[in-house]
Amino acid sequence: RPGSTKHFFNRIKVFVGHFGLFVALIIYTGIGAWVFQTLEGPYEIDRKTTLKHLLLEGRTNFTRTVLSSSLEADDLNYTFSLALETYDKIIEEVTSEGMSVLNPEVKSDWDYIQSAFFASTVLTTIGYGNMAPKTHSGRVFCIFFALIGIPFTLTVIADLGKLMASAVSSSYKSCRRHFPKEIIKSSSKLSKFGGKSATVGAAVGSLLLYISAGGYFFTLWEEWSFFDSFYFCFITMTTIGFGDLVPEKTTYMLLCTIYIMVGLALTSTAIELVRIQYADSWKKMRELSSRLQG
Amino acid sequence: RPGSTKHFFNRIKVFVGHFGLFVALIIYTGIGAWVFQTLEGPYEIDRKTTLKHLLLEGRTNFTRTVLSSSLEADDLNYTFSLALETYDKIIEEVTSEGMSVLNPEVKSDWDYIQSAFFASTVLTTIGYGNMAPKTHSGRVFCIFFALIGIPFTLTVIADLGKLMASAVSSSYKSCRRHFPKEIIKSSSKLSKFGGKSATVGAAVGSLLLYISAGGYFFTLWEEWSFFDSFYFCFITMTTIGFGDLVPEKTTYMLLCTIYIMVGLALTSTAIELVRIQYADSWKKMRELSSRLQG
Ligand SMILES: [K+]
Ligand SMILES: [K+]
Repeated sequence: RPGSTKHFFNRIKVFVGHFGLFVALIIYTGIGAWVFQTLEGPYEIDRKTTLKHLLLEGRTNFTRTVLSSSLEADDLNYTFSLALETYDKIIEEVTSEGMSVLNPEVKSDWDYIQSAFFASTVLTTIGYGNMAPKTHSGRVFCIFFALIGIPFTLTVIADLGKLMASAVSSSYKSCRRHFPKEIIKSSSKLSKFGGKSATVGAAVGSLLLYISAGGYFFTLWEEWSFFDSFYFCFITMTTIGFGDLVPEKTTYMLLCTIYIMVGLALTSTAIELVRIQYADSWKKMRELSSRLQG
Repeated sequence: RPGSTKHFFNRIKVFVGHFGLFVALIIYTGIGAWVFQTLEGPYEIDRKTTLKHLLLEGRTNFTRTVLSSSLEADDLNYTFSLALETYDKIIEEVTSEGMSVLNPEVKSDWDYIQSAFFASTVLTTIGYGNMAPKTHSGRVFCIFFALIGIPFTLTVIADLGKLMASAVSSSYKSCRRHFPKEIIKSSSKLSKFGGKSATVGAAVGSLLLYISAGGYFFTLWEEWSFFDSFYFCFITMTTIGFGDLVPEKTTYMLLCTIYIMVGLALTSTAIELVRIQYADSWKKMRELSSRLQG
């Protein structure tokens, strides 16, 4: 049947349309990641090298000062406390920039995968902040990258949300076709009774289920308890992104990004539903109060 | 004239309606701040006390070990490097929890103003993360606080955005009344020509102006350069909130919160406009491609 073939091709075209938007976002993120890596990487290496030298030199000087002091006990006491103070000052400077005292590695956090993950947290406005541009040029680029990219990402997330919603509604319709009429009737009565609240409940419920599932998976990848994983997923899906818990296993970072994107689509749908519900209640309350007063 | 009086009262009623929503949000934030302070404050004091004891004890032991060693140079060398290693381990533990080595204060960050500021960064999904709940109960509360509060805050921000938009449009209308007809005609031609892009440009432009103004004010309050202030405002208004720059002057924190709320209303309007523009372009592109193919 030619009609069916045309229908099939139309479907493919629609799919390519959605897919194209998604691919464009991936390319945009990939280019952004490369720019961030190029701008921030060398600066970070420089800074870390300086800090490492400072630390090692400080430690050597401390040792030399104490060991070379062939003085009496009282003088040694004075010399030691002075040298310790100097050492503590160096420690403060080194650790305040996030460098470890025990293992002062000169290694850039801005490898390609981490940079791509960072770029995706900018676009989704999660912004964990465990990594953030420190150079002037990196920050300027970040502003333009976000200015263009965030509305674009919101478009893709909204598109993903619509796709998911239409998938749910089409599977619901095919369910209706296969179920006996009596059940449909009673369920439609129920949905009239519950109305919007049921939709809101279902949206929030499926979101919590999704976050719980994520919570389980993150316990497998990272060294987190279930509650920590759940908390991380919640803080991520709401795009709060404190950054107190951040995934570190680079192997799963792509999977993690996809999980986040799908979750954000789910969340934006849920938040929009709840917001409409709130706005309605607020409107009704004001109408009621104006009726009571007037 | 009684009609005018009625109009006036209606205006007040509308104002009270918007204002009520705003007051409810402030009360919600205030209660949340109190709960966060109650749950997190004592735990933080405990933790900091422990760390301070650990640091001071470590320092005392270090000093005692070095000074009491009445050995020869070689042995002292060995003893010293061992003691320094122990001290470094303690330092690592203390600083990794964000405590200063030079000035180990036992003082809770969760005072009322900071807690309120934290609560507002949760509700707006900025989430700087310079402060975040560390106790189990604090995190559980944070989840529920966000779950209820974020859609509520979005409602208030959307309401604020609508108010601002209607204020702009009413002042535009009063301008139209006072300007000569020729100017109106040419400007309406211009707006037909520029169309939606002009609106988008105006929204983004006024947002950048608002951020620049904020950038200027933050240079007065905090010890930031203009670029740093601008960058902070941008990262805040997009709700990315890395937390690498966070206002610290508690005196201006309320003003800062109001600035952020108004800015977010402006941003959400701008982002929505740009998103619609993107979606339109994308739709047109797909239509064009399907016309070319079909
Ligand atoms: K955020
Ligand atoms: K954040």
